[in-house]
Amino acid sequence: MKISVLGVGCTKFAELWDKGLHDLIAQAQFEALDDAAISPAQIDAIFVGNMLAQQFNGQAHLGAIAAQQLGINVPSVRVENACASGSSALVCGVQAVLSGGADVVMVIGVEKMSDVAISQATSALMGAGDYQSEHFAGATFPGLFAMVTRLYMQKYKLTSQKLSQELAAVSIKNHNNAVLNPLAQFNKKITLEDYLKSPVVADPLRLLDCAPISDGAAAIIISSYDFAKKYKKNGINVIASAQATDTLDLASREEITSFKATKIAGEKAFEMAGITHRDINVAEVHDAFSMAEIIALEDLGFFEKGKAGFETAMGRTQINGDLPVNISGGLKAKGHPVGASGISQVTEVVNQLLGRCGQRQVKNARYGLTHNIGGIGTTAVVHIFERE
Amino acid sequence: MKISVLGVGCTKFAELWDKGLHDLIAQAQFEALDDAAISPAQIDAIFVGNMLAQQFNGQAHLGAIAAQQLGINVPSVRVENACASGSSALVCGVQAVLSGGADVVMVIGVEKMSDVAISQATSALMGAGDYQSEHFAGATFPGLFAMVTRLYMQKYKLTSQKLSQELAAVSIKNHNNAVLNPLAQFNKKITLEDYLKSPVVADPLRLLDCAPISDGAAAIIISSYDFAKKYKKNGINVIASAQATDTLDLASREEITSFKATKIAGEKAFEMAGITHRDINVAEVHDAFSMAEIIALEDLGFFEKGKAGFETAMGRTQINGDLPVNISGGLKAKGHPVGASGISQVTEVVNQLLGRCGQRQVKNARYGLTHNIGGIGTTAVVHIFERE
Repeated sequence: MKISVLGVGCTKFAELWDKGLHDLIAQAQFEALDDAAISPAQIDAIFVGNMLAQQFNGQAHLGAIAAQQLGINVPSVRVENACASGSSALVCGVQAVLSGGADVVMVIGVEKMSDVAISQATSALMGAGDYQSEHFAGATFPGLFAMVTRLYMQKYKLTSQKLSQELAAVSIKNHNNAVLNPLAQFNKKITLEDYLKSPVVADPLRLLDCAPISDGAAAIIISSYDFAKKYKKNGINVIASAQATDTLDLASREEITSFKATKIAGEKAFEMAGITHRDINVAEVHDAFSMAEIIALEDLGFFEKGKAGFETAMGRTQINGDLPVNISGGLKAKGHPVGASGISQVTEVVNQLLGRCGQRQVKNARYGLTHNIGGIGTTAVVHIFERE
Repeated sequence: MKISVLGVGCTKFAELWDKGLHDLIAQAQFEALDDAAISPAQIDAIFVGNMLAQQFNGQAHLGAIAAQQLGINVPSVRVENACASGSSALVCGVQAVLSGGADVVMVIGVEKMSDVAISQATSALMGAGDYQSEHFAGATFPGLFAMVTRLYMQKYKLTSQKLSQELAAVSIKNHNNAVLNPLAQFNKKITLEDYLKSPVVADPLRLLDCAPISDGAAAIIISSYDFAKKYKKNGINVIASAQATDTLDLASREEITSFKATKIAGEKAFEMAGITHRDINVAEVHDAFSMAEIIALEDLGFFEKGKAGFETAMGRTQINGDLPVNISGGLKAKGHPVGASGISQVTEVVNQLLGRCGQRQVKNARYGLTHNIGGIGTTAVVHIFERE
């Protein structure tokens, strides 16, 4: 498959008290339009990734907001897959183009989370897991991910200290990357000392292992390869768009230190793209918790099982390493407005391939990968982009 | 376009106190599988239409529930477009098949609404409109539809009495149809006297003009035409799948007694199918309020503007009329579990085309149409089905 990227846009991620859902969507969508240098009338369909607006903002039907703001009457829809909502919206957008029903498609991700109390947000986010068996029993996402982390520690015989160093390496790298990203929620370098001083949220996970509550939106405009060829070509293509599903609850799985959905989606994506993980020059992977980045890098085949934390601590995923990961700052430090995160990963990778990332630019990147999960690896979405 | 229908399933619509979301999804999806006589392993992708589960049931990520219950790891996603969520999920499912990425797709619609108080449901349903300008100002859906109805009355110079008779004709017809549908929420014939005695909800709309709060689920399995040809063919195809969007808020429109999105989607659907409204033998249209059915029948071209209520009162849309409409009982009397309604319309039309509807069977139906809206006509989705 080959679908072209015409343009991208992304708001600042932060607690944006002066912006509502409409504003966030508008900023991302008009930035993407400007970037693509096309008019709203050229858009054939709209997909909006969002998880929580109905509950947090009293607002469903976000596709219609996006269409109304462009003054167009094209098909529009909201897509939800918990924290993978944005990427799943892109999967649907890619399908719309491949179906022949739409030539140019706008995909937006948005979330406005700061209007509710943190406790409400933590509870609502459990909608991504199984209500019956997990939420109802009192589980939270940090709690569930802490269980995954404990088992990982045991399985790979890591001491507490070693585990801490590896988790810290992820968090420190992503925070340090975010300092160079003007759109990031956090712009402060952190040290191992800061990490170790941060409070334990769910043992062994600390505050600095957990992505924040954020507001933000991101957008991408894609088109058929033919449209881009005729119209204007920046040379960036989506060459893989793959998704898979694991069980909603953790208890039903044979294995929780590796996520089957990521493995399936990753393998399928590399097959679609006709490349291997060795070809990837820059990646944005799902680091809602530091542990999640470690597991993702292993499941995608970049590192051996049990080794990604060590390799991270060795600097292999830093901007000057052999596989720069989460150069945007990741969900941890760029921020995690859940429905927007997947599309924000994509805007970063596209900008990296286009050489637009200033001080955090990865050199000569040709292939970029994004990996976004919903729930504890229940949904996994992998996209691969190329610069021609 | 030509996509085949392999099977359908639908639960009883009612206040189902003994069933949760998982149960409802399971019943609909396994009925559809049995009907299609295929195994879960043959499903390539799942789309679930739902509006309110995150807010009402603490449960997002419904695609994963559907996949887990089938024991498969295929891409799954939730699609939301307010009360058109089910149909919009089908639009996405059709695109997935046409894209070549999936051969067999399961589309489910589900809603579990009876777990919350009616006032909460009324408020939550306003998520389908514009929070900023409508919900925040105190508007409710019955209130907004009452405004549409008043303006319609004025525009077409209907007296109160005449309007009442026309609205009543819709409601009585749909209630009487529902008596013959074992899956319907209401199974009691109503008379003009019952209608006129029912309390005014939002003048001029009465209780018997408004669809109820319901629980339920429905499912359809579609496939490429080639798959169906090789595998097993019941001869039912989707020959049009069209969607359009109008402004989210009513105040931004030039006209509110006709819904632009329905007009666009309807015209596009007839064009895709290569037939006209005269060819349709059976239709399920969106009657969340009696007025909505009247407007839909006009916007789809079945009757002149201002005339559909009169024609309904003349019996033209009854089971033995020239265009049988909402033979299932419609949203009004079959019930309106919002995310499920669009797929429930589809299961009725497919069953009508297959001659499975027993006492409410429309004779010799070859072409069937479904029309589903979200918000006050903000999203409109039209599907057309044929029996080969």
